[in-house]
Amino acid sequence: MAGSGHSYDPNFTQNCIDAIGPKASPRTREVMGALLRHIHDFAREVELTTDEWLAGVRFVNSIGQISDNTRNEAHRVSDIIGLESLVDEIAHKHVNESGQTPTSSTILGPFWSPRAPFRNNGESIIESPHSGQVALMHGKVVDMVTGRPIPGAVVDIWQASSNGKYDFQDPENQVDNNLRGKFRSNEKGEYHFYCLKPTAYTLPTDGPAGVLFDLLDRSPWRPAHIHLMISHDDYSPVVTQLYPKGDPHLHDDSVFAVKPDLVVDFKPRQGDPKAELDLHYDIKLAPRDSKSASVSRL
Amino acid sequence: MAGSGHSYDPNFTQNCIDAIGPKASPRTREVMGALLRHIHDFAREVELTTDEWLAGVRFVNSIGQISDNTRNEAHRVSDIIGLESLVDEIAHKHVNESGQTPTSSTILGPFWSPRAPFRNNGESIIESPHSGQVALMHGKVVDMVTGRPIPGAVVDIWQASSNGKYDFQDPENQVDNNLRGKFRSNEKGEYHFYCLKPTAYTLPTDGPAGVLFDLLDRSPWRPAHIHLMISHDDYSPVVTQLYPKGDPHLHDDSVFAVKPDLVVDFKPRQGDPKAELDLHYDIKLAPRDSKSASVSRL
Repeated sequence: MAGSGHSYDPNFTQNCIDAIGPKASPRTREVMGALLRHIHDFAREVELTTDEWLAGVRFVNSIGQISDNTRNEAHRVSDIIGLESLVDEIAHKHVNESGQTPTSSTILGPFWSPRAPFRNNGESIIESPHSGQVALMHGKVVDMVTGRPIPGAVVDIWQASSNGKYDFQDPENQVDNNLRGKFRSNEKGEYHFYCLKPTAYTLPTDGPAGVLFDLLDRSPWRPAHIHLMISHDDYSPVVTQLYPKGDPHLHDDSVFAVKPDLVVDFKPRQGDPKAELDLHYDIKLAPRDSKSASVSRL
Repeated sequence: MAGSGHSYDPNFTQNCIDAIGPKASPRTREVMGALLRHIHDFAREVELTTDEWLAGVRFVNSIGQISDNTRNEAHRVSDIIGLESLVDEIAHKHVNESGQTPTSSTILGPFWSPRAPFRNNGESIIESPHSGQVALMHGKVVDMVTGRPIPGAVVDIWQASSNGKYDFQDPENQVDNNLRGKFRSNEKGEYHFYCLKPTAYTLPTDGPAGVLFDLLDRSPWRPAHIHLMISHDDYSPVVTQLYPKGDPHLHDDSVFAVKPDLVVDFKPRQGDPKAELDLHYDIKLAPRDSKSASVSRL
């Protein structure tokens, strides 16, 4: 680095932090003070140039300019830099420290919808044409501590179609809420529904995410995955994703969201005219009154 | 901080950095590697919550969504967190280390226009009605090393009107290029033109900048100022701002851009029917072949 003998104004960053007024909450002061300090330290450390700063300004503007009700590019960019995975790790560290192991969480991603319909166990979430393989997904939701079944848990599933697109990215080919659905576990804690064996896809590269992948010489591919959000009033919710064994992108996921215990095995299914594959997956939830409950934030 | 006994995955951040591919330039690797490390360190340090991260995602999207050809909100937000001032300091640290002192630089801000017209010395940049005080601004552009006048230097000036708005923020009251102009120094290095004594104003608070000021309990006011960009082929350009002595916001500038030697004195002007105030300001430029030239980036 050039100019190592130079010292910057030693008060500049502290002056910026001290400008935070008395009505800001202590947490705002903590978070924003740390953010300012890290951004300033970053700029000094790399001796950020005017051109690089302006490129950053243009990049930040471009994120919102391409975003709308069905596209959340800031969420996507934060995934590409690993931030959502890191926030997920932070949120669950107390759970992980407890020594008990609920089903592993991973990132929500930008494609969850609050409007997914409830469906009955045994129904299919597939409503539009596709070229994929149909699977029966089934399993049991159980209490992490007692192992007892949890009736009435909501299993919310969403996935891309065989062309790698979610319903609201693909209105020409998919009806609203295609490949989305919420199922309630029965009195034995069981759920089952028909879905697709998921297909790998690339993140959209026609916007800032694509600029970032090019700049960093990184792959935009995600491994194939099924998204799940499992919730129940008495338990900490789990947001997670399941990945088929053998997917070529398990080791270079563009959003750093794969965990070994989330890799699953789709097996051939016999005697079911509706599905050629079978996926058995049990889910363990942590009770809200356990040590880990307080960190649940969703 | 809670959970101090916990250690995060020690490899996560390095894995994200190592995902940068072989075709990325060494400088990209340096800058983006440092940026990822600081963002991750920030998140771990404050134990960033899911809600806080989502608030950040929404905030970043909102920046581009309000930006257009005449509004650069990412530039503005970077000014509010002190980043443009810091980048300016970094760009000029070699100049400052040389022991020679060209006219101090400060931030460009988001209101410079590449389309400002050339005007003749003695003309006015005031083309639309206003309620301010007219001043004759005049001075000499000189070589920082020899003290000799620099003929043919371009003095590019822009300023807000007496309502605190720039031309392209205020098309109903101001014609295009009102209060903008470029002047060439004459054979004696002299320039002079009529402008307004500047008026203090607040940054626009109807977008993300306003959200940030509220969050941080900070004032959106800037001290009154005149923007200048002085350039010549043989010299390092200077981007700077001049502030009237006595302005109440010299000590809480919302973008951290005031330097003591940029505070100037508007004096009464006698016998000039066109102006009631007088501002004398000489400008010192560093030759491009001096030690400092290589850091000039504009």
